[in-house]
Amino acid sequence: MKHIAESTVRRLSLYLRFLEEGEARAQDTISSGELARLGGTTSAQVRKDLSFFGSFGKRGLGYHVKDLIEAIREILGLDKTWPVVIVGAGKIGAALAQYRGFSSRGFRVVGVYDRDPARIGQRLDGLTIRAESELERDIAKLKAQIAVLCVPSEAAQVLLDRVTKAGIRAVLNFAPSPLRVPKGVALRSVNMATELEILTFALTNRIEGGPR
Amino acid sequence: MKHIAESTVRRLSLYLRFLEEGEARAQDTISSGELARLGGTTSAQVRKDLSFFGSFGKRGLGYHVKDLIEAIREILGLDKTWPVVIVGAGKIGAALAQYRGFSSRGFRVVGVYDRDPARIGQRLDGLTIRAESELERDIAKLKAQIAVLCVPSEAAQVLLDRVTKAGIRAVLNFAPSPLRVPKGVALRSVNMATELEILTFALTNRIEGGPR
Repeated sequence: MKHIAESTVRRLSLYLRFLEEGEARAQDTISSGELARLGGTTSAQVRKDLSFFGSFGKRGLGYHVKDLIEAIREILGLDKTWPVVIVGAGKIGAALAQYRGFSSRGFRVVGVYDRDPARIGQRLDGLTIRAESELERDIAKLKAQIAVLCVPSEAAQVLLDRVTKAGIRAVLNFAPSPLRVPKGVALRSVNMATELEILTFALTNRIEGGPR
Repeated sequence: MKHIAESTVRRLSLYLRFLEEGEARAQDTISSGELARLGGTTSAQVRKDLSFFGSFGKRGLGYHVKDLIEAIREILGLDKTWPVVIVGAGKIGAALAQYRGFSSRGFRVVGVYDRDPARIGQRLDGLTIRAESELERDIAKLKAQIAVLCVPSEAAQVLLDRVTKAGIRAVLNFAPSPLRVPKGVALRSVNMATELEILTFALTNRIEGGPR
């Protein structure tokens, strides 16, 4: 497959959301123009994004909502359920463990882990916080491929190394430090303070409309 | 000022973190090479990032840690305290309201708002959740310029319109739908499910190293 830009994948995720909303309203077809308007882009961009993955839609008729949902879910790998482990049950980790937006998209949080004895054994919705020492065994048993790291910076690299050795292939990291991943492992980092700093930079330097 | 790419601002935020760690260890100077190594980039990139904003450091001596911290804090607008309001006190909103990473960088959460009577009046650390109807008055009184939106998609645009009319100039949005901002308002969106979908796309399409 050609190299697909992250921005394309991000838009596909957005189109899927609109398509699912359309399906919930019993909408049968959708035009590239309507998808573009909802997603804040152009019809040409929508057609280009979808053209990477095959031929969808018919000129003048638009896309069949159900078919396009199925196609995008397959492209994004959402045609199956992904077990996810969350490492670190602090404020952010606990919030994510209970976040309903995950389950609605096929992500199932199968374990939440912490090293703090005061947290281990506590309940978060349907889950019990488990000891970090159980990570390796659980990842193998649950066949989890995705880990969300919500631990302090100084613990992040060690835990990333441990979970990837145990079979994790993709990591979403909330620690502020950059991490090294083994070959073949996908990594994304989200840093709340950095997001706010990009905003204060825009405010301070009066960038119209701000960064994207 | 020239247009500065978001990736540059992101790296400045990262350099600042390393510099502050250095300062905590009583480190006096730092080379572009050391900053590059910590940030996973090259010395040339470090020098280029800093050159946008003036002349720092001396050849062969590196950067003076304290001076560079001060300079980057000023560039990012972190030489003052930013009052922040959080709109929506669900799982994510409540976690962010109590997130310590904010206050350490000069962001002070001055208010948390919700429309659910069951949440209004509840305490989150030192804050009491207030009624959404108080937003306009509070933003004016507290001179808040930054809002974090942690509300459901269907409520996000209306609340964004309300807070920007009341004086908010920058919005960090956690709702999954794209939002329209008035001219002069900076907007960033973070979507946890999309972050995971970029990972499952990488897993499904076996992209080595994953997307950046």
